[in-house]
Amino acid sequence: MAGQAKRNEYLDANFDRMVGYLQEWLAIPSISTLPEHRKDVQQAAQWVVERLTAIGFPETTLISTAGHPLVYGQWQVDKQQPTLLIYGHYDVQPVDPLPQWSSPPFQPTLRDGNIYCRGASDDKGQIMLVLAALEAWARVDATLPVNVKILLEGEEEAGGAAVADYVLNHPEALHADAVLICDTHMVNAEQPSIITGLRGILYTEIAVTGAKTDLHSGSYGGVAPNPLHALCLLISRLKGEDGGINIPQLAAAIPPPTPIEKQFWQDDPLHIKEDLLAEMGVNKMVGEVAYPPLERIGLRPTLEVHGIRGGFTGEGCKTVIPARAVAKVSMRLPANLDPRKVFNWLEEAVLSNMPAGYTVNLTNMHAGKGVSVNPDNPYIRAAAEAVEATFGSLPVFMREGGSIPIAALFAEVLQVPIVLMGFGLPDDTIHAPNEKFSLSQFRKGMKTVADFLGRIRRP
Amino acid sequence: MAGQAKRNEYLDANFDRMVGYLQEWLAIPSISTLPEHRKDVQQAAQWVVERLTAIGFPETTLISTAGHPLVYGQWQVDKQQPTLLIYGHYDVQPVDPLPQWSSPPFQPTLRDGNIYCRGASDDKGQIMLVLAALEAWARVDATLPVNVKILLEGEEEAGGAAVADYVLNHPEALHADAVLICDTHMVNAEQPSIITGLRGILYTEIAVTGAKTDLHSGSYGGVAPNPLHALCLLISRLKGEDGGINIPQLAAAIPPPTPIEKQFWQDDPLHIKEDLLAEMGVNKMVGEVAYPPLERIGLRPTLEVHGIRGGFTGEGCKTVIPARAVAKVSMRLPANLDPRKVFNWLEEAVLSNMPAGYTVNLTNMHAGKGVSVNPDNPYIRAAAEAVEATFGSLPVFMREGGSIPIAALFAEVLQVPIVLMGFGLPDDTIHAPNEKFSLSQFRKGMKTVADFLGRIRRP
Repeated sequence: MAGQAKRNEYLDANFDRMVGYLQEWLAIPSISTLPEHRKDVQQAAQWVVERLTAIGFPETTLISTAGHPLVYGQWQVDKQQPTLLIYGHYDVQPVDPLPQWSSPPFQPTLRDGNIYCRGASDDKGQIMLVLAALEAWARVDATLPVNVKILLEGEEEAGGAAVADYVLNHPEALHADAVLICDTHMVNAEQPSIITGLRGILYTEIAVTGAKTDLHSGSYGGVAPNPLHALCLLISRLKGEDGGINIPQLAAAIPPPTPIEKQFWQDDPLHIKEDLLAEMGVNKMVGEVAYPPLERIGLRPTLEVHGIRGGFTGEGCKTVIPARAVAKVSMRLPANLDPRKVFNWLEEAVLSNMPAGYTVNLTNMHAGKGVSVNPDNPYIRAAAEAVEATFGSLPVFMREGGSIPIAALFAEVLQVPIVLMGFGLPDDTIHAPNEKFSLSQFRKGMKTVADFLGRIRRP
Repeated sequence: MAGQAKRNEYLDANFDRMVGYLQEWLAIPSISTLPEHRKDVQQAAQWVVERLTAIGFPETTLISTAGHPLVYGQWQVDKQQPTLLIYGHYDVQPVDPLPQWSSPPFQPTLRDGNIYCRGASDDKGQIMLVLAALEAWARVDATLPVNVKILLEGEEEAGGAAVADYVLNHPEALHADAVLICDTHMVNAEQPSIITGLRGILYTEIAVTGAKTDLHSGSYGGVAPNPLHALCLLISRLKGEDGGINIPQLAAAIPPPTPIEKQFWQDDPLHIKEDLLAEMGVNKMVGEVAYPPLERIGLRPTLEVHGIRGGFTGEGCKTVIPARAVAKVSMRLPANLDPRKVFNWLEEAVLSNMPAGYTVNLTNMHAGKGVSVNPDNPYIRAAAEAVEATFGSLPVFMREGGSIPIAALFAEVLQVPIVLMGFGLPDDTIHAPNEKFSLSQFRKGMKTVADFLGRIRRP
């Protein structure tokens, strides 16, 4: 029996144990943005350090940072072999709105061939399948086929400051020939994909102040500034019903897609548009009708409001005009655009579109560049071959709308290919209630990564 | 010494005790809209029943309702004398945002000649001064000069369903010659006022649904409906930056002001505009520039958004596109307009201004008519004389922007004059943090009400 067949056999035989590990890890509520979960985040980091040690990594360490710790592991097998840096994140998103979860968000639950839990797909499940692949090599072959460095952060959902700082300050420690990131999703369970582009992100808070104190709408309604109304006016001016973003500098700065990409987006041979409609549960999309839906997700910039704080949103009828209101507004950006530059454009647009009678302040909460990968290199070819071997069909090379700022930083600092090979599915509802990961994807992902490791050759 | 002088002497001599009673009552957090305060509301009702009994009311009772209880007291002194019905409310508004309070909201605190506490001005302080006036008569004169019925509700801040139900079903029990309501404010500490008009209110929730689940703005941004953005578009269309409300039926339905009122509003001889600017802490008003500020508060309709629920408003950077968002939107209306009719107009406007790709649902949370009082009657004349005797200047007759729907109901059901004589000040910040009541207003209010009771004559 060939090596990969043995490793696949090992992974099948030990699958339930791997699911058990994942359940253990998922049960730790490592929400990085909430201070009350600080200890849980630490515990989730410690858990994976112990797992790496158990697999056989000679070097594992928890790296302290100003925020949550980094997990680092290294297994140097042969100087002649290439080195692969594997990145992932062990922190998860908050869980609200809690009532919409069918099972408790941190009680990993097996249902209909899926495992439901916050973090199941994003990203603990995808890290766990990498760990399973590494274990298969360690047990079946008593070694790894390439040198492996693994770096996991605990702040991906909270801005990722610590890992960015570390990468910038320790490029030599992270030196590698390629980077593997399993934190994306496929087109669907039958159509694998490798991601060649990710949008950048700019996350801001727009704070608007009116009167010096909250006011009663009876006594002051008609003369009082209402920061909530001002935010409605402002946001409706920043982005219209047609999805057009009213930032004049933006239009000229968006790069044209390659003819092949444009054709793929226009033809949509995989009928992704239908998938998107079904996933959203709508029969009509919202957004820029002049662009194909795939281009709107892959390349076009977006401006979304994620929440508006201020006034009264509880039960009952409080007639308050708040003194202050804050909107959380983010933008997704094509990879060539520096989010810090776009922040200045957005600030200009906010100032010039604010209604009179208010003060406004825009805060840059988080900015990360996008990434654009040229797929013509041996590492991505090895990934494509491994995907085809397990899934039975060649992956498509696609852009994804999300942002993994660390991918852009790796590309910039390490100057090596980034392999964005993820096993999530579009209906995993990451960042939302009832996040899940398909157990079938979990199993195939392990086998694909194990196979990929064996196919890597120094160019 | 004349009767009123003796009563004033009594009120001065017992002032500290009255402040103590008010502190006791204010310390009970009777927030009617929050279910967890149900027992506190009950306790605040019980407290005032005991106070009425202590004053000497022969009949006092707690009337059970579907919601919070009504407090009823009656003191029949002489069939030949007129009967005054006194209305007030013992419930209070919620207290958020809590961090903005300088002292705990339910720890009555004396500071700078004021008493700070939720409910100090709205309305416990104003009921307490009426109770003090009644006690002065009971102790100094061993009787009251007129028959008194007192009806206090515990749901004024929660829609007032129970009292409205009671008034509609027991008009004979409440039969009276006039109604006194102390729940409004004066122009300022030197310029007393009697209110001759109150706006009606319509309080709604606008619920907008987009996708079937919350979505990730990376994976779906560009094609996903965003209900928060839809609400921004909708609200900006319902009311523009110029304050104009986009409900076509409304313009024709607003009654013209009387020439005297229009002149008063235009001239603003009491410089109320400057007071409003100072109270709000702004140097520019927001709203319909074509109308004087006093007309905008007194007669013009308003449309205000009080809060927008949905998505993520906590710390950090959650990139969620919520499936659903809800805006709390209220309107203030001139007294002649039926809020239920306006609800239909608003619903039409919402439906015709909704962006495509969403479902929307408008809920009528609460509706109350405004009231318009003709000041030419002996009860309001008696009130004006009493005000002048204590404050040293004649009151102005004014409209107030707020809503006391029960006043409209009393006018409709009992068909008697409503005396809206309140002692609040514009900077009492009712419904907002640091609500207070001036101790000097508290003292003068007691004396004014005691004097008013003595001046009432059957016409």
